[in-house]
Amino acid sequence: MSNGKNRVWRLAKRPEGTASDNDLHLVEEAMPEPGEGEALIRTVYLSLDPTNRIWMSDMDQYMEPVKIGDPMRGIIAGQVVKSNTPKMKEGELVMGVGHWADYILTDGRGLSVIGKPGQVPLAELFGVCSAVGPTAYFGLLHLCEPKPGETVVVTAAAGAVGSVVGQIAKMKGCHAVGIAGSDEKCQWIKDECGFDAAINYKTEDVGVMLDRYCPEGVDILFENVGGSIMDEVLARMNDFSRIALCGLISQYNATEPVPGPYNFKQILMHRIKVQGFITSDFAKDYPKAMAELTQWMGEGKLKFRLDIDEGLENALTSLNKLYDGSNQGKLMVQVSEVAAA
Amino acid sequence: MSNGKNRVWRLAKRPEGTASDNDLHLVEEAMPEPGEGEALIRTVYLSLDPTNRIWMSDMDQYMEPVKIGDPMRGIIAGQVVKSNTPKMKEGELVMGVGHWADYILTDGRGLSVIGKPGQVPLAELFGVCSAVGPTAYFGLLHLCEPKPGETVVVTAAAGAVGSVVGQIAKMKGCHAVGIAGSDEKCQWIKDECGFDAAINYKTEDVGVMLDRYCPEGVDILFENVGGSIMDEVLARMNDFSRIALCGLISQYNATEPVPGPYNFKQILMHRIKVQGFITSDFAKDYPKAMAELTQWMGEGKLKFRLDIDEGLENALTSLNKLYDGSNQGKLMVQVSEVAAA
Repeated sequence: MSNGKNRVWRLAKRPEGTASDNDLHLVEEAMPEPGEGEALIRTVYLSLDPTNRIWMSDMDQYMEPVKIGDPMRGIIAGQVVKSNTPKMKEGELVMGVGHWADYILTDGRGLSVIGKPGQVPLAELFGVCSAVGPTAYFGLLHLCEPKPGETVVVTAAAGAVGSVVGQIAKMKGCHAVGIAGSDEKCQWIKDECGFDAAINYKTEDVGVMLDRYCPEGVDILFENVGGSIMDEVLARMNDFSRIALCGLISQYNATEPVPGPYNFKQILMHRIKVQGFITSDFAKDYPKAMAELTQWMGEGKLKFRLDIDEGLENALTSLNKLYDGSNQGKLMVQVSEVAAA
Repeated sequence: MSNGKNRVWRLAKRPEGTASDNDLHLVEEAMPEPGEGEALIRTVYLSLDPTNRIWMSDMDQYMEPVKIGDPMRGIIAGQVVKSNTPKMKEGELVMGVGHWADYILTDGRGLSVIGKPGQVPLAELFGVCSAVGPTAYFGLLHLCEPKPGETVVVTAAAGAVGSVVGQIAKMKGCHAVGIAGSDEKCQWIKDECGFDAAINYKTEDVGVMLDRYCPEGVDILFENVGGSIMDEVLARMNDFSRIALCGLISQYNATEPVPGPYNFKQILMHRIKVQGFITSDFAKDYPKAMAELTQWMGEGKLKFRLDIDEGLENALTSLNKLYDGSNQGKLMVQVSEVAAA
């Protein structure tokens, strides 16, 4: 894979609708050489996340959009190949913001050293703790403050974030109802993740099922999707209920303006709090979240699935599984193997 | 007006679109007689509020809708005519939830004694303190926590609530920008209420003007209206900004489903907090709010306009001024005069 070359996905133009290889090009380039204060990282895993599609667009968003011609931004786990900075040593494993490439040059900003080969279960730690776990943790616990006995509805509930939200909700004594897009996903979140109920929005009437599974209304909505499903939940939310607005994946590929929820006025009528968030808003609370999440993982209390595709060249095809719902759990591509210490 | 008869507006059917006298009928009935534990109140002022139209509908809402055939619910100021309850004495002035009628029978629930004739400026106290002032106070101060130097945008800014919001925002050192529906209203909120800028949404490009008057973006939106104006503000909101969702008057007369804001995703991208509320949510903080509001009124720091129409028979015509924007300040009808002590 190396042979002195580096493959980089560059944004050629802003996608309209689903991103394709007309929009992102995999370009073979010369291997970068770290200067003073820099390190060269070999990508091991590239995380694929719904928000990637936002970064490709020029919509008003929470970070700078990726510029045309630039490497596509991505969350990566990697290994230090060569280091001219005291921040990281050769062979160490790192996680953080990088881009879609075999090799990445860094001055260390945005990447954290997480250990040496053999010390950490890299795929699991990367899959759950890099962003997914903290997103679920902060969105549910900090923004929605669940109380025992409350009803929590999670959309995209079999997704990486959603499945963790439901499990934390159960640990906090809540009634957890998940909405997902296949019988298999619904079965998995009930049998493995402990959700009390699951609704297959592709085959069931979401409103009818919400009435059945949330007889006392909805106290918390952890929203990843938007659109008509959100409207069905909004129609059943209790006074003083809370919405953690984590994602709106149903509209990231939209080519026309998308209306907000038709039941927006429920926010007024039921005095709902809606709070948008991204995980990095809670940077100062990361250590506590990571400690709890890794403890739960160690105790086997946090079930998760990794959906790992092979090869940087498949990153774009793999990404699009998120938008048609064909992924099964936390999606990433393996770009290379960890080298022994 | 009395002669042993009582006029009562009763809801005949749920309005579609603007409420008309096909929907509410003014019925002449026998004068009610207070039983043990009851009092008879003569209505002096009937408050007309945007939310009245909600109560006429059967949409999911924050109180029970008014039932078909029942007297129309309204906030009233009145005088005790006869009392068989220790809660209130003959001649005392009361304020609270009543209905659209010359005379109201009460067991005292929902009505508070506010003084004797001559002790209080009834119209002013009723106009500002019964609901308008606390709504502005709690929505801005409790939900949005304005900091000096922040930019506050208020929709329906020349309305009863909006004009108070802007004045409190100025007292707290904020930059206040109001959106209203006529040059006269814009002039009034700038000259009398001290708003830094005003936008006439009927004649000006709201987006362009917001860019001009809010060069550092918007930190707080006090929303009374909804629709396309809300979208323009949403497009300019800063990270971690706040929206007090007080009203959505643009859609109360709608006969078709109304989409939520097209810029709903800004809530996610800029981590906006949206909180719906009604004033009674803050009942425990009423004494502090009333103390501050009456102090500001006494010091002349709080300007307001009362728009008082005459006659219970004109209540419905008067109410509809709210929806076409032709009212000028706090709208009410005078139903009778206060009798001397």
